[in-house]
Amino acid sequence: MPLNQRRIGRPMKSSSSANPKPTLLHIDSSARTARSHSRRLSNAFVDAWLAEVPDTRVIRRDVGINPPPAINEQWIASAFTAEAERSADMKAALSISDAYVDELVQSDIIVMGAPMYNYGMPAALKAWFDQVVRVNRTFNFDPSEDIWPLSPILAGKTLVILTSRGEFGFEPGGIRQDWNHLETHIRTLQHYLGVEDSHLIAVEYQEFGDTRHSDSVARADSELQALVNRLTAQIEVYQTA
Amino acid sequence: MPLNQRRIGRPMKSSSSANPKPTLLHIDSSARTARSHSRRLSNAFVDAWLAEVPDTRVIRRDVGINPPPAINEQWIASAFTAEAERSADMKAALSISDAYVDELVQSDIIVMGAPMYNYGMPAALKAWFDQVVRVNRTFNFDPSEDIWPLSPILAGKTLVILTSRGEFGFEPGGIRQDWNHLETHIRTLQHYLGVEDSHLIAVEYQEFGDTRHSDSVARADSELQALVNRLTAQIEVYQTA
Repeated sequence: MPLNQRRIGRPMKSSSSANPKPTLLHIDSSARTARSHSRRLSNAFVDAWLAEVPDTRVIRRDVGINPPPAINEQWIASAFTAEAERSADMKAALSISDAYVDELVQSDIIVMGAPMYNYGMPAALKAWFDQVVRVNRTFNFDPSEDIWPLSPILAGKTLVILTSRGEFGFEPGGIRQDWNHLETHIRTLQHYLGVEDSHLIAVEYQEFGDTRHSDSVARADSELQALVNRLTAQIEVYQTA
Repeated sequence: MPLNQRRIGRPMKSSSSANPKPTLLHIDSSARTARSHSRRLSNAFVDAWLAEVPDTRVIRRDVGINPPPAINEQWIASAFTAEAERSADMKAALSISDAYVDELVQSDIIVMGAPMYNYGMPAALKAWFDQVVRVNRTFNFDPSEDIWPLSPILAGKTLVILTSRGEFGFEPGGIRQDWNHLETHIRTLQHYLGVEDSHLIAVEYQEFGDTRHSDSVARADSELQALVNRLTAQIEVYQTA
């Protein structure tokens, strides 16, 4: 299938689907509300998307303002207990995870505001991943497979990572390429979210506050609009095919 | 200085120091108490260390059982406000960070139980790093420096990372080397903890539960005792030099 006809998410799989509206999961994880570049970018992306595909259903999950709890012993025991055998306490231990996974399952495109904190994800975003990557819900475990026992259950999703970095040079070949533990980590984990197509836009140089930063902001804004145009055009190509 | 005379932490810097007792910061971050390999390893390391250097002072910080809060907007605003200008609310927002940084500042060797969750740190351990990496306490920021503005304040510490991995092949050249977002990330961040010497011991194959796993446990135990012997011998070499 040519790139410009790649499907965005499941509801796009059939133009005669009973549910043709795409669903967009809008996640933010910045600890900041004011002056957050990742929030500004994710809001701008959703606004630009809705301008092109107004009948999109948007699910909002803000883990920056409401950080998920870290998983605990009860969570692990419950997740590895068959659903029919879980006690009421076990079910309660998984209730947040269930809610997050339900949101993920329904989504076709995930728009993730993910600022770089200390060269990786904010702890709150890692807590979201730890709640969401779950046996029998997002991945299967095959005990007879002795090299690659894990496989994703979900498929066909698109991920857009919108990040901000205080410093610069985190791209391949850049002076800090080995310190980029945000993009590399999310790109590993996206497999278990059912993501098959992902994109990243970054604002850089935030700590310097000079023209390198303002240039970076302008470049990110321009890349963002181009990405929205490209992704929404794919939907149109598919729907009219 | 030959490797076997490298200094372990600050109190080792002078054999006539007023405080010759080394301080060991023992961190655990597993969500599990029972059946946690990283906890078993960190406890075994501390026990073996104390058998060699009984007058060590041990500071205990268990972020697995008591996860630190994710930093929030108030935390960021407070950290970037000069100490003398902080309100009572601002000081309160930094109180956990202050306690963790104080523990780090005092430590010569950090023993860190750090299980791999979803190919990276547990969210609780990332929350600890986000509390600890702090301007004017663990790093300086030089606004006139337009490429490398951050520099660590602390120095001379040794870090021992004790990890467990459900799968295998995360070492350089291994089949999952690009999925190792735990060791790589901690090795980037250790710079800001003042760590100049670090070591990692891993139990692998936990999800498979076969002889590859039991072999890995035995190998880790053997590496652990050898590392304790090597590090404690350095103290003796230095103290008798």
